[in-house]
Amino acid sequence: MTDVLPDQLITLSPEAQAQLFTEARTANTFTDTPVGDDQLRAILDLAKYPPTAMNVQPLRVLFVRPGEGRDRLLTHVADGNKTKAATAPVVAVLAADTNFHEHLDTVFPIRPGMREHFAADPTTREAMARFNAGLQVGYFLLAVRAAGLAVGPMGGFDPAGVDTEFFTGTGWKSLLLVNIGHPGPDAWHPRLPRLDYDTIARHA
Amino acid sequence: MTDVLPDQLITLSPEAQAQLFTEARTANTFTDTPVGDDQLRAILDLAKYPPTAMNVQPLRVLFVRPGEGRDRLLTHVADGNKTKAATAPVVAVLAADTNFHEHLDTVFPIRPGMREHFAADPTTREAMARFNAGLQVGYFLLAVRAAGLAVGPMGGFDPAGVDTEFFTGTGWKSLLLVNIGHPGPDAWHPRLPRLDYDTIARHA
Repeated sequence: MTDVLPDQLITLSPEAQAQLFTEARTANTFTDTPVGDDQLRAILDLAKYPPTAMNVQPLRVLFVRPGEGRDRLLTHVADGNKTKAATAPVVAVLAADTNFHEHLDTVFPIRPGMREHFAADPTTREAMARFNAGLQVGYFLLAVRAAGLAVGPMGGFDPAGVDTEFFTGTGWKSLLLVNIGHPGPDAWHPRLPRLDYDTIARHA
Repeated sequence: MTDVLPDQLITLSPEAQAQLFTEARTANTFTDTPVGDDQLRAILDLAKYPPTAMNVQPLRVLFVRPGEGRDRLLTHVADGNKTKAATAPVVAVLAADTNFHEHLDTVFPIRPGMREHFAADPTTREAMARFNAGLQVGYFLLAVRAAGLAVGPMGGFDPAGVDTEFFTGTGWKSLLLVNIGHPGPDAWHPRLPRLDYDTIARHA
């Protein structure tokens, strides 16, 4: 275990900072090196831990490998994203489960009755599902990087089309597509600028 | 640097996995050990890197220390959260900037005209701000843990009240309050159960 100086501002190791935050980059091409089911399972097993409100955990994931399912997915992907979505070993469809309340008796037993409370309020439920799944999307993307793999999130797709194609009869609402694999040739674009501290932070 | 076996499913070091994911827990009490401005700056400097759609980076943060600002904040916090929000060295109000488009010429210069495009579409803009800020909330919570600090996210507050109190005249919309500090006595509740793989994942 690395020694940590008491006055060090970030105690996470420099290697881990680089792997998850500072040196990791969105990949735009992928090699054909496969990604195993055991690796996908390990990623979700790591991503499941960080917090959600009332432990609701609304994130759902459809892993789509090349084949018939991928072909159906591609019909809903924006033209500019089709090539990379076609060649990634795995495309994850990240979704929010608007029926997360069905699990509340299990995941939040400390406050009985919340299942019924949310059952009666689909508007609040959808907002809560989307917001908390959004946090979990953040955890998921960093967990993929923790597995030594590159991610390529893609917002350019038709969510309603994907939901009809894959999620009819469920409460799943697709949020984001994420290519997962090993980076291929010319995988990286130059890094775009980040906003500075004085733009994003205030003190009171 | 830790040796990594080629067939290891998670390549991030076990120490880093524990610090960010598997052993970190939501803190409910805090000591009075202060958290410095340099530490808050280091946290945002780490959290700024992971991806957002079109690099929009809509997350904004108001750091509130004990004093007059904290007193004003507390009037909008649910009773069950008041004590911990009163005693944390720092409470971060995490918000989505619905006017993120004003920075697009700087942060996304590769596709000119997007600033004007979003200026004309406040509905899409707010949805995009909220979703991408949600991802960044995930990055932020893990970045606080990377600084060796404990986080305590709190959804129980009045967002409209907080926005009027602190964000009038801006496009900032509050999303979540986060206590930040060093864990105090009896800081942890027992961990609540996580959903299993077959509930959250599908394959196609």
